[in-house]
Amino acid sequence: MTGTTRKTRTTRTTTHSPSRTRSWWGWGWADAHPDDAECLAMGALLPGTLARPLPVPRVRDLRIGRPAVEPPASLAHLVATDPGDRAAHAMGKAYRDVVRALHGRPGRVPDLVARPTDGGEVADLLDWAGDRDVAVVPYGGGTSVTGGVEYRGGTHRAVLSLDLTAMGRVLEVDAPGRAARIQAGALGPDLEDGLRPHGLTLRHFPQSFEFSTLGGWLATRAGGHYATGRTHIDDFVQSLTVVTPAGTGTSWRLPASGAGPSPDRLFLGSEGALGVITEAWVRLQPRPVHKASAAVAFTGFGAALDAVRAIAQSDLAPANCRLLDASEAALAGASHDGSAVLVLGFESADAPVADRLERAVDLARAHGGRRDPVADGAPGTPGTSDTAVAAWRSAFLRMPYLRDGLVRMGAVAETFETAATWDRVPALIEDVRTEVGAAALQATGYPATVNCRLTHVYPDGAAPYFTVLAAGRPGDGAAVWDELKAVAGEVLHRHRATITHHHAVGRDHRPGYDRQRPEPFALALRAAKHALDPHGVLNPGVLVG
Amino acid sequence: MTGTTRKTRTTRTTTHSPSRTRSWWGWGWADAHPDDAECLAMGALLPGTLARPLPVPRVRDLRIGRPAVEPPASLAHLVATDPGDRAAHAMGKAYRDVVRALHGRPGRVPDLVARPTDGGEVADLLDWAGDRDVAVVPYGGGTSVTGGVEYRGGTHRAVLSLDLTAMGRVLEVDAPGRAARIQAGALGPDLEDGLRPHGLTLRHFPQSFEFSTLGGWLATRAGGHYATGRTHIDDFVQSLTVVTPAGTGTSWRLPASGAGPSPDRLFLGSEGALGVITEAWVRLQPRPVHKASAAVAFTGFGAALDAVRAIAQSDLAPANCRLLDASEAALAGASHDGSAVLVLGFESADAPVADRLERAVDLARAHGGRRDPVADGAPGTPGTSDTAVAAWRSAFLRMPYLRDGLVRMGAVAETFETAATWDRVPALIEDVRTEVGAAALQATGYPATVNCRLTHVYPDGAAPYFTVLAAGRPGDGAAVWDELKAVAGEVLHRHRATITHHHAVGRDHRPGYDRQRPEPFALALRAAKHALDPHGVLNPGVLVG
Repeated sequence: MTGTTRKTRTTRTTTHSPSRTRSWWGWGWADAHPDDAECLAMGALLPGTLARPLPVPRVRDLRIGRPAVEPPASLAHLVATDPGDRAAHAMGKAYRDVVRALHGRPGRVPDLVARPTDGGEVADLLDWAGDRDVAVVPYGGGTSVTGGVEYRGGTHRAVLSLDLTAMGRVLEVDAPGRAARIQAGALGPDLEDGLRPHGLTLRHFPQSFEFSTLGGWLATRAGGHYATGRTHIDDFVQSLTVVTPAGTGTSWRLPASGAGPSPDRLFLGSEGALGVITEAWVRLQPRPVHKASAAVAFTGFGAALDAVRAIAQSDLAPANCRLLDASEAALAGASHDGSAVLVLGFESADAPVADRLERAVDLARAHGGRRDPVADGAPGTPGTSDTAVAAWRSAFLRMPYLRDGLVRMGAVAETFETAATWDRVPALIEDVRTEVGAAALQATGYPATVNCRLTHVYPDGAAPYFTVLAAGRPGDGAAVWDELKAVAGEVLHRHRATITHHHAVGRDHRPGYDRQRPEPFALALRAAKHALDPHGVLNPGVLVG
Repeated sequence: MTGTTRKTRTTRTTTHSPSRTRSWWGWGWADAHPDDAECLAMGALLPGTLARPLPVPRVRDLRIGRPAVEPPASLAHLVATDPGDRAAHAMGKAYRDVVRALHGRPGRVPDLVARPTDGGEVADLLDWAGDRDVAVVPYGGGTSVTGGVEYRGGTHRAVLSLDLTAMGRVLEVDAPGRAARIQAGALGPDLEDGLRPHGLTLRHFPQSFEFSTLGGWLATRAGGHYATGRTHIDDFVQSLTVVTPAGTGTSWRLPASGAGPSPDRLFLGSEGALGVITEAWVRLQPRPVHKASAAVAFTGFGAALDAVRAIAQSDLAPANCRLLDASEAALAGASHDGSAVLVLGFESADAPVADRLERAVDLARAHGGRRDPVADGAPGTPGTSDTAVAAWRSAFLRMPYLRDGLVRMGAVAETFETAATWDRVPALIEDVRTEVGAAALQATGYPATVNCRLTHVYPDGAAPYFTVLAAGRPGDGAAVWDELKAVAGEVLHRHRATITHHHAVGRDHRPGYDRQRPEPFALALRAAKHALDPHGVLNPGVLVG
């Protein structure tokens, strides 16, 4: 066992692109947003959009009052009160957040933004907030698309946004044991920068990777972009440190344990309502060196689903197994003849993967698929060449920026995801397409695009991911989306498909979540909430209460 | 997606070996216990054992009084009160249970044994028990080795053992979706019998398989005998139905969900303290057709650990990767020269596995291992031939019976397991061997055998499984074991190794569990317990209270 006890303490503070500015109202970097000309070009593709883009909103046009509370003197150095910081922490990055910001109606702006630097300061802030009826909204990268980081409709005396990004370091790496202790506020790129010198990776790449944090991933049970195998953040957790109003706890660092219900699993997905995750030991992987990918086209979506199921039920474990329906494939430039396209990718740190790829392609062929060299290199697919991979990655990361450009053109542009067992998948997808499309036509007077791709597949089911592009109603886009989302929620409920596969519940999904959750679990969760957060200040309105 | 919605309703009631009788005091079938001559032969191998075996105990020698309560008339047809049934439900099958039974001192014998036939009857029984302060101890196959199915030291008016085995059917099979709905009381063989016609298997084979139930596996987070990959019952769960005193709930059948903390994970491992699991949808697998295995010998245990770590960190995913230390290998007949032996096995339903086996053997060789044709076929290893596999399986399943034979000879014979990260594994194993060995010598005056094998391996750690064979103290074996277990518990705690990897907490592991569990989680669990079981009648003393 030589060497397994060697650990490296990492003290470097990584700061990801410190010279760029985050957008307070839209996705990502302020300088990466599409300009007016790009917005117009995109708007021209969709019926019913505006003649010119809505202007980029300015903080100074918002009426942001003085904070309703003063921070305590002992913690004042951690707290910001300037309007720009407060506005940037008012909401997440869902369509309904962006459109509200564009119309100068952000959610309730927090009174204070605190940036603690360690767990003790988090505990002090929670103590102070509990004593004074101040709501605390934990905030990582602020990329929630389900209303997870705003304050909505409560009666607390004030609101504090608890920004964890000053706790962003990789603290310790156990390279032989393939694990690292990382602070919750670490953004994806900083975290990977800290692991790279050890030849290791967390290999967790949600679409929000650049702007979201480990703590956010853990609190929302994030899914990475790999289609099978180790892709859910839940499975990477060795140990969590959680600060609650009732005390702080750290679970033991264990590869597995059967000692009672998993303590970590109660806090994974708790969305800041039970406590604040401040650090975690996470499992790492070696960087893959063997890669292979291919695209397969299908004339019918049903045959493509059968092929995907066969691959998901094999022992091949593709890293990517992303099925795009015809409309999604066309949008991605991967198909122009009405074919659905399946993108397959394999990765390994150990051994060549070409044979696994061939076996997967053979399974696809057995269900009527045809290997498609055109789709292979399209920007909407990972492709087989390094250039194509880079193009795909770039397009994938660019999508949320384009979404914001469409919103400036008055369009409704949003996504939602679910998961269901295989027997329910075909009708579920069809019903979402039909019923959300009909609702959009009725709400806006224009036909909408409702695309579907499968992002994650399992032996027993799949995760369909829907993109909705619709005309808006001038000044009323959030209401249109709420109507469409309600229709979508009914379809999901009817098919017993989860209200969220990897975007969390937040506030937007509460109606669906409350219907989905078994009542005894709801009782247990409410009791746990009351025990850990007796004053009810932690992320009020999320999950319980 | 042709065919994916086809399901088969299975109405057949399977009854596993109805003509044989379960032992009320020891493992398994009464007719499979070693006879006196076998006991004597085993006793001769261990110093300090008795001159003749303790007699097989008889129920009629126990003083079992009348039940302290009468069952309600409406449920009386579900309830047994005869002394044999009550004695058989008094305890699990740990060493300390067997030795107490042999000395005519079983734990508190339940007043009533109820066998509900559906969830509604379970709910009725819980209602009745809550109103009358009757403790309810859920009971599946009764194979707990941690005091999980007895009543100990409480003040309830009476005790009801809730035997789930009348709910033992496979209710529904979704073959295209690879899942089945199964009642919690289904014993391993019955469950597999129900799946076999569909070409599917749950592929969950704990050593107790023949005598334990799906519900017991779920409530205790059981581990199967596969070393890596899908081996924990937790990962097979699509949906659970749980009956609690506060109501009944069924989680949706989903391949994955990010909607809040997992409701199922709160009940997995809850050991009957939060509710009674009555049925589950579980994920199935095709039966493997490609198999290959090999044994590799190592001169040093440290080198063997390094080899195992390398294999566990590869993407090979062996079905078996069982490392026996020199003493364990000798006991299993797999080594006679002081070598440690690593048994590797691969299985797949899809593709040949010979190349994966060769890559694993190569990794073992790179750490000094030598492929060992002798060990390959030894009864203590799975072996490469069908005969050797059958011999290994037979020996594996026979072990608990032999344990009981040794106990009749006055010996202390018990096992315990744990898990730890790789950096802690070598010293942990060494300290358990040294300190438990020294404690046994001090307690009994005779040297003891303390063997170790790794049963499960992970990229970030391993699960060592220890066997302790020691002389007893006449009439006082349980106390000797309690002393040894306390020493072992201290070693585990010092190394932050879990108090249990797959045997659950029960009552025996409470001290270790209470020290291991993070305090905020303990608060949450107590609150959940109070909400779901307000009268505190469910398995009192387990996990909380």
